[in-house]
Amino acid sequence: MSAFDLVHYDVADGVATIALDDPGTGNAYTPALADELEEAFDLADADSDVRAVIFTATGSNFCIGADLSGGGFDTSGLPAEFDEAWKEPAGRCSLRIYEMNKPVIAAVRGAAVGGGSTIILPADYRLASTDARFGFVFSRRGIYPEGASAWFLPKLVGLGTTMDWMISGRVFGAAEAQSAGLVHSIHEPDDLLEAARRLARDLVENTAAVSVAVLRQMIYRLAFQESPYPTQRVDSRLVFEIGANRDAAEGVASFLERRKPKFPQTVPSDLPVWLPWRRL
Amino acid sequence: MSAFDLVHYDVADGVATIALDDPGTGNAYTPALADELEEAFDLADADSDVRAVIFTATGSNFCIGADLSGGGFDTSGLPAEFDEAWKEPAGRCSLRIYEMNKPVIAAVRGAAVGGGSTIILPADYRLASTDARFGFVFSRRGIYPEGASAWFLPKLVGLGTTMDWMISGRVFGAAEAQSAGLVHSIHEPDDLLEAARRLARDLVENTAAVSVAVLRQMIYRLAFQESPYPTQRVDSRLVFEIGANRDAAEGVASFLERRKPKFPQTVPSDLPVWLPWRRL
Amino acid sequence: MSAFDLVHYDVADGVATIALDDPGTGNAYTPALADELEEAFDLADADSDVRAVIFTATGSNFCIGADLSGGGFDTSGLPAEFDEAWKEPAGRCSLRIYEMNKPVIAAVRGAAVGGGSTIILPADYRLASTDARFGFVFSRRGIYPEGASAWFLPKLVGLGTTMDWMISGRVFGAAEAQSAGLVHSIHEPDDLLEAARRLARDLVENTAAVSVAVLRQMIYRLAFQESPYPTQRVDSRLVFEIGANRDAAEGVASFLERRKPKFPQTVPSDLPVWLPWRRL
Repeated sequence: MSAFDLVHYDVADGVATIALDDPGTGNAYTPALADELEEAFDLADADSDVRAVIFTATGSNFCIGADLSGGGFDTSGLPAEFDEAWKEPAGRCSLRIYEMNKPVIAAVRGAAVGGGSTIILPADYRLASTDARFGFVFSRRGIYPEGASAWFLPKLVGLGTTMDWMISGRVFGAAEAQSAGLVHSIHEPDDLLEAARRLARDLVENTAAVSVAVLRQMIYRLAFQESPYPTQRVDSRLVFEIGANRDAAEGVASFLERRKPKFPQTVPSDLPVWLPWRRL
Repeated sequence: MSAFDLVHYDVADGVATIALDDPGTGNAYTPALADELEEAFDLADADSDVRAVIFTATGSNFCIGADLSGGGFDTSGLPAEFDEAWKEPAGRCSLRIYEMNKPVIAAVRGAAVGGGSTIILPADYRLASTDARFGFVFSRRGIYPEGASAWFLPKLVGLGTTMDWMISGRVFGAAEAQSAGLVHSIHEPDDLLEAARRLARDLVENTAAVSVAVLRQMIYRLAFQESPYPTQRVDSRLVFEIGANRDAAEGVASFLERRKPKFPQTVPSDLPVWLPWRRL
Repeated sequence: MSAFDLVHYDVADGVATIALDDPGTGNAYTPALADELEEAFDLADADSDVRAVIFTATGSNFCIGADLSGGGFDTSGLPAEFDEAWKEPAGRCSLRIYEMNKPVIAAVRGAAVGGGSTIILPADYRLASTDARFGFVFSRRGIYPEGASAWFLPKLVGLGTTMDWMISGRVFGAAEAQSAGLVHSIHEPDDLLEAARRLARDLVENTAAVSVAVLRQMIYRLAFQESPYPTQRVDSRLVFEIGANRDAAEGVASFLERRKPKFPQTVPSDLPVWLPWRRL
């Protein structure tokens, strides 16, 4: 199903699976991998049959970080002169996930280290296997946090844990990640993908695509503004439009009839046109 | 004591109790209820005899969310044309609490679901009974988060839990709410109100009304700005005025004499006039 | 080694120790102490031999708060007229720590109360002894949070705990502080300083000074902006410069050779000149 070299992509039962698929290298992160990840998330976001995305990897490691097989950081993909529009590769993936209108469930086995630890931060859920290990190891390599991880991580684990993990650069396991709030649940390696699928199915069966798309972006675009008033303005416009919201009619009817909902609206077709952050 | 139809209001021993009081409907949230809640919080905020507010409900549920007794969302209160000044009903309550100069202790029994889960977020404390259940169920009804909950919730429980609760729309109990940081303490249903009163009495007896009013707003208005410098400027002006602060003199004297303080200043009368966010 | 009256300062093995050193007063906080703390942190920040700072105190209390030995708050250090450039003393220390390019490990014994509870918030780590106690006691003294604590505290412990601790003004112990995320680890009083030194040595031996300096400020300056895009822009420029980054070459070489790194660059000399927040 996939036209990618480094990424596996498929859609089944409303769920897209996007998997790093270069297990021989530990799914080492490269500009070419970033290109394919951006394209895969674009595909999933634009496909109205996709209701949720599982973000995972083939093999025993999610992503070991930058490709060091050449004996150092590969600088061949860097521009000759700095250009404000140029984006480092991890951030191209993490910001693309940030902008998604579909929920993203990361399922992590083995190492998610360096760049590999940053691209999972904008996912909505992080499920880990018992053998998962994470590390914002930049300080130990003489480099810097990537993937806008300096922005995402404090929102997930607080400032104290962020400073510890980022300054020390130490590698830690799934239990510490869960206790700090980075990971939602821990599973045996062989159960991990099924746990992600179970969660995705629950979202597909019980939630409205447009509601999820809008609220996900409301949180990302409005929650970190300095006051709640911009959120109130968007809330008010959405409530004002409730009479024309076909999903709301179905949501109430199914609730009162105690049956599963069949929400008619799809994403991106039925997103409110006036949302200031719309890109699709 | 109360001139309200849908809200109970009383003041005793320095503590206002504001209770949703339409138990036959599960305290279903309506524009009329929002009107009365706004007015009740206005009363409590303007009354210098009120030092703390308990926000609770009559009956076995705090608030089941929107009134669906007509078979769907009631759109009769909506304006004919959208107007930027129009505010959706849950946000009218939650933003009014955000702007309070008195501490607010929410005491929640039974369901606090949908709009009912959002209006407690700007309270300073959330005490729950063992039978409390919460749910940001918007995605399951085809609608959107209300009450600026997209702004408040990440500050209480972090981004990971916020995304889970908001995207899944699932209902959860008091233990999960406490573990995530939404709820401060859990009590038997019959002990809940007394626990809230005990906490309110502790605040009335031991803290200065002006200090609490100012610091509550300092946190809400300054803590979510991008740098600490605006906070430092307000801190500095408040320290500069310490010589004229009668509460500070009593605070130190009572501390050194190991007795309960009797702070002379009241709210709103004695709030510093220059605070940029003053509304009273 | 120290030219200070109220502060002990020494540097050994790459670690500066800055200790409040007025134990007869419980290290009561005064403008003179603030002067010396600012100067001590300036020294440590400018000294390229300093890789980490331990912030602690002599005696059985870290800092009991403002000096009340005169029977009230000492107003002698206040300006005659308010001047926007004047800074209250606790904020002078806490904002200086915020601006540090070296990691700061606070090691707290006994009371860290009032101003003493605020100046540790911008440290990267807070290690506490079993007998430590903390209190944002401002509301109980008729005064207001100092040291920009209204900004720092919610980032460490969330908004719910912040409101509880700030509004109630109650004193709490090390276990509650750790459970809330204020404290990273708890130690027997006699083991506290050695635990801080062990952590400092780990940072000195395993991390790159420039990486730590840059990422610490990336988090403080960028993470609390409303979107991740400014972070992405700084990330991208740092990645673009990786070819000229001598620490990165050593970081990869030592990693591939499985040996301790010897990072050549120092702080402040080798900080990227274009970082918008540079002050050294």
